Amino acid sequence: MIKEAVIGTLCGLVVLTIGILIGHFGIEKKSEAVPSWLNDVAKDVDEKIIQQFLSEVDTVQIQENLRELTKVPHLATSPGDEQTVQFVLNRWQDAQTGLDKAWRQEYKVYLSFPDPNNPNKVTVVNQEDSVLFSVREKEKTYYPEQDDPQVVQPYAAYSPAGHARGKLVYANQGKPSDYERLNQTIDLRGTIAITRYGGEGRGAKAINAAAYGVVGVLVYTDPLDINDGLMSDTNETYPHSWYLPPSGVERGSYTKDFGDLLTPYLAAKEETYRIPPEDISGIPPIPTQPIGFEDARSLICELAGDPAPSEWQGGFDCTYNYGGPGFKPTSPFNSSDVKLDIFNQEKIINSSNVMGVITGSVEPDRYVIYGNHRDSWVHGAIDPSSGTSVMLEITRVLGGMVKQGKWRPRRSIIFGSWGAEEFGLIGSAEYTEEYFTKLSERTVGYINVDIAVFANATLRASAMPSMQSVIFQASRQVNAAGSDSTSVYDNWIRYSNRTSPTHGVIPRVGYLNGAGSDYAAFVHYLGIASIDMSYTYDRSKTNARIYPAYHTAYDTFHYASNFIDPGFVGHQAVGRTAGNILIRLADSLLLPFNCSDYAESLEDYLNTAVTSYQTQLQAEGISMEPLKHAVANFRRAAEQLDKVIQSSDLANETPLKVRKINDQLMLMDRAFLNPLAFPDEYGFRHVIWASSSSGKPTFPGLADAFARAESSGSSSDWQKVHYHLSVVSQAIEGAADMLNEVI
Amino acid sequence: MIKEAVIGTLCGLVVLTIGILIGHFGIEKKSEAVPSWLNDVAKDVDEKIIQQFLSEVDTVQIQENLRELTKVPHLATSPGDEQTVQFVLNRWQDAQTGLDKAWRQEYKVYLSFPDPNNPNKVTVVNQEDSVLFSVREKEKTYYPEQDDPQVVQPYAAYSPAGHARGKLVYANQGKPSDYERLNQTIDLRGTIAITRYGGEGRGAKAINAAAYGVVGVLVYTDPLDINDGLMSDTNETYPHSWYLPPSGVERGSYTKDFGDLLTPYLAAKEETYRIPPEDISGIPPIPTQPIGFEDARSLICELAGDPAPSEWQGGFDCTYNYGGPGFKPTSPFNSSDVKLDIFNQEKIINSSNVMGVITGSVEPDRYVIYGNHRDSWVHGAIDPSSGTSVMLEITRVLGGMVKQGKWRPRRSIIFGSWGAEEFGLIGSAEYTEEYFTKLSERTVGYINVDIAVFANATLRASAMPSMQSVIFQASRQVNAAGSDSTSVYDNWIRYSNRTSPTHGVIPRVGYLNGAGSDYAAFVHYLGIASIDMSYTYDRSKTNARIYPAYHTAYDTFHYASNFIDPGFVGHQAVGRTAGNILIRLADSLLLPFNCSDYAESLEDYLNTAVTSYQTQLQAEGISMEPLKHAVANFRRAAEQLDKVIQSSDLANETPLKVRKINDQLMLMDRAFLNPLAFPDEYGFRHVIWASSSSGKPTFPGLADAFARAESSGSSSDWQKVHYHLSVVSQAIEGAADMLNEVI
Repeated sequence: MIKEAVIGTLCGLVVLTIGILIGHFGIEKKSEAVPSWLNDVAKDVDEKIIQQFLSEVDTVQIQENLRELTKVPHLATSPGDEQTVQFVLNRWQDAQTGLDKAWRQEYKVYLSFPDPNNPNKVTVVNQEDSVLFSVREKEKTYYPEQDDPQVVQPYAAYSPAGHARGKLVYANQGKPSDYERLNQTIDLRGTIAITRYGGEGRGAKAINAAAYGVVGVLVYTDPLDINDGLMSDTNETYPHSWYLPPSGVERGSYTKDFGDLLTPYLAAKEETYRIPPEDISGIPPIPTQPIGFEDARSLICELAGDPAPSEWQGGFDCTYNYGGPGFKPTSPFNSSDVKLDIFNQEKIINSSNVMGVITGSVEPDRYVIYGNHRDSWVHGAIDPSSGTSVMLEITRVLGGMVKQGKWRPRRSIIFGSWGAEEFGLIGSAEYTEEYFTKLSERTVGYINVDIAVFANATLRASAMPSMQSVIFQASRQVNAAGSDSTSVYDNWIRYSNRTSPTHGVIPRVGYLNGAGSDYAAFVHYLGIASIDMSYTYDRSKTNARIYPAYHTAYDTFHYASNFIDPGFVGHQAVGRTAGNILIRLADSLLLPFNCSDYAESLEDYLNTAVTSYQTQLQAEGISMEPLKHAVANFRRAAEQLDKVIQSSDLANETPLKVRKINDQLMLMDRAFLNPLAFPDEYGFRHVIWASSSSGKPTFPGLADAFARAESSGSSSDWQKVHYHLSVVSQAIEGAADMLNEVI
Repeated sequence: MIKEAVIGTLCGLVVLTIGILIGHFGIEKKSEAVPSWLNDVAKDVDEKIIQQFLSEVDTVQIQENLRELTKVPHLATSPGDEQTVQFVLNRWQDAQTGLDKAWRQEYKVYLSFPDPNNPNKVTVVNQEDSVLFSVREKEKTYYPEQDDPQVVQPYAAYSPAGHARGKLVYANQGKPSDYERLNQTIDLRGTIAITRYGGEGRGAKAINAAAYGVVGVLVYTDPLDINDGLMSDTNETYPHSWYLPPSGVERGSYTKDFGDLLTPYLAAKEETYRIPPEDISGIPPIPTQPIGFEDARSLICELAGDPAPSEWQGGFDCTYNYGGPGFKPTSPFNSSDVKLDIFNQEKIINSSNVMGVITGSVEPDRYVIYGNHRDSWVHGAIDPSSGTSVMLEITRVLGGMVKQGKWRPRRSIIFGSWGAEEFGLIGSAEYTEEYFTKLSERTVGYINVDIAVFANATLRASAMPSMQSVIFQASRQVNAAGSDSTSVYDNWIRYSNRTSPTHGVIPRVGYLNGAGSDYAAFVHYLGIASIDMSYTYDRSKTNARIYPAYHTAYDTFHYASNFIDPGFVGHQAVGRTAGNILIRLADSLLLPFNCSDYAESLEDYLNTAVTSYQTQLQAEGISMEPLKHAVANFRRAAEQLDKVIQSSDLANETPLKVRKINDQLMLMDRAFLNPLAFPDEYGFRHVIWASSSSGKPTFPGLADAFARAESSGSSSDWQKVHYHLSVVSQAIEGAADMLNEVI
């Protein structure tokens, strides 16, 4: 009986176990079925994907992209531009390495070109109207590229057509203070001013001049500012080095505002309302033309008058005089005039953006946007094709992973190849005007890589402070250009650093105050967290204002591959870093934004403002307490949000809680927008990063208003300071509210 | 053996079954644990909660709320106002029926009051300065309420203090066309104009007058406009009926813009920048005073001059003449002047909003806001305390369910008891200025119930067209006031209906074009989908402009409970309907917004615009195609989104997909905002619902620009029409983009 009982029990146990196993594994618990999407919504960035991306970014691919993009000049709307449209479209529509979707998007925009049949002329003419000297109309040819008939000859875009003649004066950088100084001893009415690039916006040099009665403006690049003083093309400048040859001329847009000039705040479509061209502000009111330094030397070194002050002196082997006005009695140009004959023509013409998309798997309604312009002045190897070559390499690698089914980002990625940037960031600005609300509500961040390599010494990045940490994280994972042991981060910190109260010594990330490239509309108009990055110089080795072939006919594949980034290792480092950031923005479960770093920047601004302004403001009865209160609130809110994040097990929380925090991080910057803060500046709505003429590293509206009030002393100007203090305080309080507990 | 085998098998089966049960139910499948939040995020509105809410909304509770709120006059910032602050706070902080949190929020705002020590005076004085007639300074007392020392005596808020004297003219409604007509035969310089309420904004009557040199303005309520002609308080008017007694005076704010007048676009805090009061626009430039119709009759019936046209005639038993200017030779007032002595004082003073919150369980970062102002002119039983009584009843029922743990909304609910609405929607406007970005990014909808019952005949609702369907759904579930068989919906459709191309005959939901109550900042400044609702008259029974005791000392508990809504059944119907909508907005898995209904409204607007403008626009070379294209795109996008919704099994989708659709629905209206479209109108940024002086039911900016261009014929005015066409087309395209597939 015992045996039978044991056997029975054993059998019973076996049957019971079988039953348990069947019950547990064999029968699905219908009522508690786990939804298939559960793992997807909780998925974080995959470091293996990052590593695969980094390993696939290839210097030879980038080099071949660049070779293709720079075959012909591709000035906006030219046949060469159309070739690049097709090239980018084909790449993004490629079945193996393309994106989900790519298309062309056109705007009808207002551009300015020289007349190919009537070249602009700058001459010295004597009283009998004989031409004593002519500025060259075309840069010197060293390679066949310079002879391409599609090369647009030097001009100042948006300078009016017209004829101006007068005695020459030298006006330094064409700042208001420069003309004011000249005007103390010279009657500027009816003169022609020659100015050098730098220190002031292109168009402003002419606008400032016209206020004193100057009738025409020349602009040249001084060898001291661009060439570390070197001037000879027999052995010093390009094609022997990266330096600007004597005949090289920086072209450029002479506009103050960005976006299509005829359709402010409206996307420039066929039937869109256009303001009358005579209502455009911020462009030269008088004929203006850029010239090379060889010709500038021929004019400046002949000038009569008192010697200009030492800070006006440049790289020529002569003393820069003010001008009599006009030339020295001993000069062959004695009593001659300088004459400008400008034949620029404005056109309303279609310009194309090329857009491409990878649709997000989990949050398709969140966008990470990566962009660069496609149009150049001439061949534009560095500006912008270095950036486009990098962008196409990033899309090749990511597109390949998508097409192979290896990867799909959590959020959607939009790539923009903008048109007509050189004329004033037009393609990107029109895009943001057309899709304002959609972009504002859905865009996580914008990454701009325009000139990818100014030089190949070190990374340079400007960004919203909240993005500093993701830039650091990505740059630590990438090898510095040409190194296989030092990271981009470790290399960068040697060239440019600062001491952060929180982090100690770290690389210096700049601010996006200006409108230097296509990030402008995203930062200033939309308030979207943005990054602009590139590789750049060793500042201990050159004082060049910018890479010397900038906007000239020498910015070619030959120049880029020989003098800027041989081996394309700088391109590669930028592509890897920017792509790494892009993947992190697109894939991270929690957006990689650090608002405490934003607080640090606001505290910096506040300290500068208090130190610089508080005593005088108190005397005017204006309290800075609301601003201090706002910055302190922002800091507290940022720390509070950090705590919420740290104490959350995000992968196991409801996806709506993660989304809540991500929305706080994403939308915080929108609170800094105020469409009424800078009514005279097109598109500048971000009260923290607007450009400021004061030069002080503090709240720009406050700084400019203070400078004006201090100078005028008028009570209405002090009221404007008070107004800007209220505007910026309310904006910061509003941003803090976005970070605070949502209810 | 067989028996044993059977028993063994049976035992085995029993054991197996036990095993299966243990295995299935007793052991959790660790690897596929279902997160606890899964049901919560998929939960939809619970109809049982709606039914419970409806059953608990109680007429007696509303009546007692109203009795308490109307004990004393509660003019903004007065001691009576503070009593209501405390009352609302106590209710919202109640342990059994309160909200999660409630607090007071103050703004320092610019208000205008009469001087209690120097009453405003309106007199008729003869050439020897003898006073022949004095307008009464105080309304007649029928009940002790009218004698309360806290009753503010009739005045025109923001009329300047000052003394004006001149010959009287009758200027109808004080419209520009009225003064123009008068000015054809009378030199208006130095005159005093008497005008009747209606047809034009309060302050505009004085602004329009001043343009013709008029030096003072009187405003009265004509018995024809308010009392269906009745005038006697011995048997016709209050206290015998709802009609206005002869001495009753409508107080009011004589401002054009809403929000604190000194701090446009800035929250009015202690240190906020304030514009100089002399820079305020849109308020009377000349002394202005409202008077009762008894006194107005004494003046108007004595006027000399030609008889005014028939459409200027009112309810008095005399012919309304223009005025000589001045009185008839046969009048005792012959050759006398009318004199205004106004002693109004402006103050910058703290005004309180009371805020209360129920935190959402699943999406706390989505807000449904329900609000009404708290301040009145006198006792304000109807305006606004009928609305506040209803709001407090809604919070009592919902708060009770929350405190009992029976319910918590999916989204957060914010209740706002706004201050200083009567002076220009100030409390709500300052709130939206302070929290602009947070509210803009997170608010699903705003429900405004100010005057809950103008009368108790039928529901009246104005809203964004997308909210029509939820209003209908809710109103079908509620019994009409005083009925237990007819729904609010079925009752409503009898009083006011229209034929929709989609839905056939339906109740007419109005548009929120104006700034009549606290919805203004939410609609016009923030672009948030909003509803304003109340019960109102049977228009077949009265032509009253508004309920007759509006803004007088007769708007008391006695008046409300005897003549507007005996039994409080109208209040109850409104509370049930508004609360039902509130719960649906807060709890629905999918937001109950119908964008196809919005498309129908845009198509209506488009049809009107094409019919009215196209021929002339074509003649001016302006194409309407972009507008047609935009509206067609919006319709297509709305239908596409409807399809996505219909084909989705939302309860089983990822919560982020539901959120994506809800964000599309919530944020679509933001695309209609353009801060530059109406630069002269404070806070008007919504290009579809802005107010328009044209009166045409179409796009307001286009309509006004067209009217101006048609009248002036100037080419720059036609350019402005083209501009507005582009603005509105781009806005509608942007809204369509929000509804389109997100990438």
